[in-house]
Amino acid sequence: MKNKKSNFSEWYSEITKEAGLCDLRYRVKGFVVFMPWSVISMKKMYEIYERELERTGHLPAWFPALIPESNFQKESQHVEGFTPQVFWVERAGDNVLEERLAMRPTSETAIYQMYSLWIQGKGDLPLKVYHPSQVWRYETKATRPFIRSREFYWIESHNAFASREEAEAQVREDMQMAQNVIFEQFGVPFIFFERPQWDKFPGALSTFAADTLMPDGRVLQLPSTHLLGQNFAKAFDVAFLNEKGEREYCWQTCYGPCISRIYAAMISVHGDDAGLVLPYSLAPLQVVVVPIPKKGSERAIEKKAKQVEAALISAGIRAKADFSQNTPGFKYNYWEMKGVPFRIEVGEKEAREGDLTVVRRDSKKRHAVKERELLHFIQKEAALMLADMKKKALSEFEGRMAKATSMEALASALEKGCLVAVPLCSIEMEGRNCAEEIKDKTAGDVRGIRFDKKEHAQANCIACGKKANVLVYVARQY
Amino acid sequence: MKNKKSNFSEWYSEITKEAGLCDLRYRVKGFVVFMPWSVISMKKMYEIYERELERTGHLPAWFPALIPESNFQKESQHVEGFTPQVFWVERAGDNVLEERLAMRPTSETAIYQMYSLWIQGKGDLPLKVYHPSQVWRYETKATRPFIRSREFYWIESHNAFASREEAEAQVREDMQMAQNVIFEQFGVPFIFFERPQWDKFPGALSTFAADTLMPDGRVLQLPSTHLLGQNFAKAFDVAFLNEKGEREYCWQTCYGPCISRIYAAMISVHGDDAGLVLPYSLAPLQVVVVPIPKKGSERAIEKKAKQVEAALISAGIRAKADFSQNTPGFKYNYWEMKGVPFRIEVGEKEAREGDLTVVRRDSKKRHAVKERELLHFIQKEAALMLADMKKKALSEFEGRMAKATSMEALASALEKGCLVAVPLCSIEMEGRNCAEEIKDKTAGDVRGIRFDKKEHAQANCIACGKKANVLVYVARQY
Repeated sequence: MKNKKSNFSEWYSEITKEAGLCDLRYRVKGFVVFMPWSVISMKKMYEIYERELERTGHLPAWFPALIPESNFQKESQHVEGFTPQVFWVERAGDNVLEERLAMRPTSETAIYQMYSLWIQGKGDLPLKVYHPSQVWRYETKATRPFIRSREFYWIESHNAFASREEAEAQVREDMQMAQNVIFEQFGVPFIFFERPQWDKFPGALSTFAADTLMPDGRVLQLPSTHLLGQNFAKAFDVAFLNEKGEREYCWQTCYGPCISRIYAAMISVHGDDAGLVLPYSLAPLQVVVVPIPKKGSERAIEKKAKQVEAALISAGIRAKADFSQNTPGFKYNYWEMKGVPFRIEVGEKEAREGDLTVVRRDSKKRHAVKERELLHFIQKEAALMLADMKKKALSEFEGRMAKATSMEALASALEKGCLVAVPLCSIEMEGRNCAEEIKDKTAGDVRGIRFDKKEHAQANCIACGKKANVLVYVARQY
Repeated sequence: MKNKKSNFSEWYSEITKEAGLCDLRYRVKGFVVFMPWSVISMKKMYEIYERELERTGHLPAWFPALIPESNFQKESQHVEGFTPQVFWVERAGDNVLEERLAMRPTSETAIYQMYSLWIQGKGDLPLKVYHPSQVWRYETKATRPFIRSREFYWIESHNAFASREEAEAQVREDMQMAQNVIFEQFGVPFIFFERPQWDKFPGALSTFAADTLMPDGRVLQLPSTHLLGQNFAKAFDVAFLNEKGEREYCWQTCYGPCISRIYAAMISVHGDDAGLVLPYSLAPLQVVVVPIPKKGSERAIEKKAKQVEAALISAGIRAKADFSQNTPGFKYNYWEMKGVPFRIEVGEKEAREGDLTVVRRDSKKRHAVKERELLHFIQKEAALMLADMKKKALSEFEGRMAKATSMEALASALEKGCLVAVPLCSIEMEGRNCAEEIKDKTAGDVRGIRFDKKEHAQANCIACGKKANVLVYVARQY
């Protein structure tokens, strides 16, 4: 494998290929085939995220993949933002359709037409619905598998409320959910930023987006949640009768955790120069048993390896003994590359004495474990492993936080792969020119202000020199 | 509710609307919105089916929704069969695409290009992969929600083998899987027929499809599995090196359980004039607790209802106490209509004595259950309920099996809503004219010969009068 730190881009290309995560040879540009080793983990990520959505009162529904052009055009900023990316269907069989249909690039304009029918009174609110789905966007930026492609796998959640306060509380719930899932369970650290007004979701009042740092120091946007206000409600007539019998527009939010992209962040943050390092709960295979043949003891070793495999499987652990013809060394490397959390080595000594050698993927530390304590050890050690992976990831993330008050200092910190706090005059539209100047001079993008803590700028705007009203974070982006 | 037996079509329309299963008001013809009450059950159906696919050695993968037209055209029967139904993408943003892309109506032509790359030697075989997905078909037949629409939810499984024997064994495994899942767990009876040659999957050697009977006596096709032979392998160059070092084409099969349609059959077979009757494992809500207020005991009743709800939920049961302002009678009807398997009534007596009244949805039988035995009772009774539902469904199915040796008898049996065994000269292409004559005279479709038992025709062909080689089944179809 390539060195992850010094050559992340090649490491990423190599691991996605070697570990069998995807195949780029599909004959439509920007579309990839997701292969079993990644899909098994992504299916588990979906399950975990959906469980959290249901725990917070969301119900699942399935909306159509095709959206009539006239729906699509109802919210003016939205149509402007997404139209350049839409795949259009104009013909079916030999028939020209009466109206062009958009393959959904996101589903607001499909869903809110229905919300307008479903919501009548206050009793219909709040309405909290999620849809696990794929969306299609004709990206003009360079595509990378899992990170950005023309078809991606995500969950959309769309909520409607009677008041702005409830909608704002939902935005906070969405962010907390990301913390509970993406950091606590997948071990990927991030910060939620309120995006500048020029970089918000088309049609929203404000956008809050999680940025993680990839090993090359570039930020990757993870879930974003949007306070839509009443813009779409007005465009689609999503309204309810209030206590006075008057019609009021709903306050809406939407939230889009992109599972394929979270997967990209997860493998990039945790991987090392030997390959993938997968959290135990997401690994397609959690434990691999490797027999180490020794002349004269072949039968005993094979028997013990099978016995251990059977005990693990019957305890509900995804386990497998590798009896292939390869050497033990080849097997070690192969399963390390695939990110299997635990390897159990069964040699002559282990077959004889009932002590097993267990190796943890992340630390590569070897543990002598009594066979009767194996299940307990795996369970306990899996939790420790996740805690260690989180700690390491968080410490790397924090090690890349920097500050700058001049363009030169900013450029130099960005060059080192940092996420840099800088004073800016504003994240309202009047700050846009300054952000463009930053981009021109340093290739850094203004990601917005932190949502998790109030920070004040102590200096003048790094670009125009006027009083800085906000402390923003700048990074190079994917 | 309408009477299900005498007026099935209206019953079906009413239940899909009243129980909140789908919304037909989406603005694209033939596309429906699937609402939470059906989606929760369909997600469970997916889980159960996928577990069975994995148990039989299939791995999940995700293939693109768009297929290049040139891929699509590689297998001549396939392109002829599906082209009239394809939604075409020709434009993205403002760009005209270099090649038209088909929204997948089924994925053989997307997947087999990859199989040609993935399969090199015998060690790559068998290859067993499934993809849970949606497909899109521009249906010209009348659409009905869940039964036939232009977007449907299914699973595709695509397998490749080194020999015809293994492919044939896979076809049998697919049929057994349908039995294990659709009959054993969802309670829907069916028979697998080998379809006549004129009605097979475009590009296959032979098609085996499950037919169930809807309450109006029409058959609905459930999963079908196809012996593709080497047709697609030749078109897409899916081949392996055999022991002699020669390239041999693979033998392929594909299998497509359509979850949304299986759901349609499930609710139709089990439902009654009070509404849905859902198997316990699929019900979004498994137990509803209905308090029956009585002056002076309100607090005690509410407390008991909450206590029962909490005990059920903490045992992992999907349960809810209905404290809404409606009358108990309204609540009984509402939750019966929604198909909740168990209702627990909590009145003054129950609150005082600790005995609960539990009512089963299918039989409406009332049971007095000691509170401490409630969890055990629910568990035991849920299994009995499924067994009873299966028994009832099977007996109705078998009661509709008939035989005929003349067109008049056939027409009369079809009029009564039967699946009718009749002698036919052949299900090879030479029998097609006779099948068309049957269709013209009786509106019945020849569904093929039974796969589960060998049957012999004892009479002459019902149409041409020549010696009948096969006993086929005829029914009116959806």
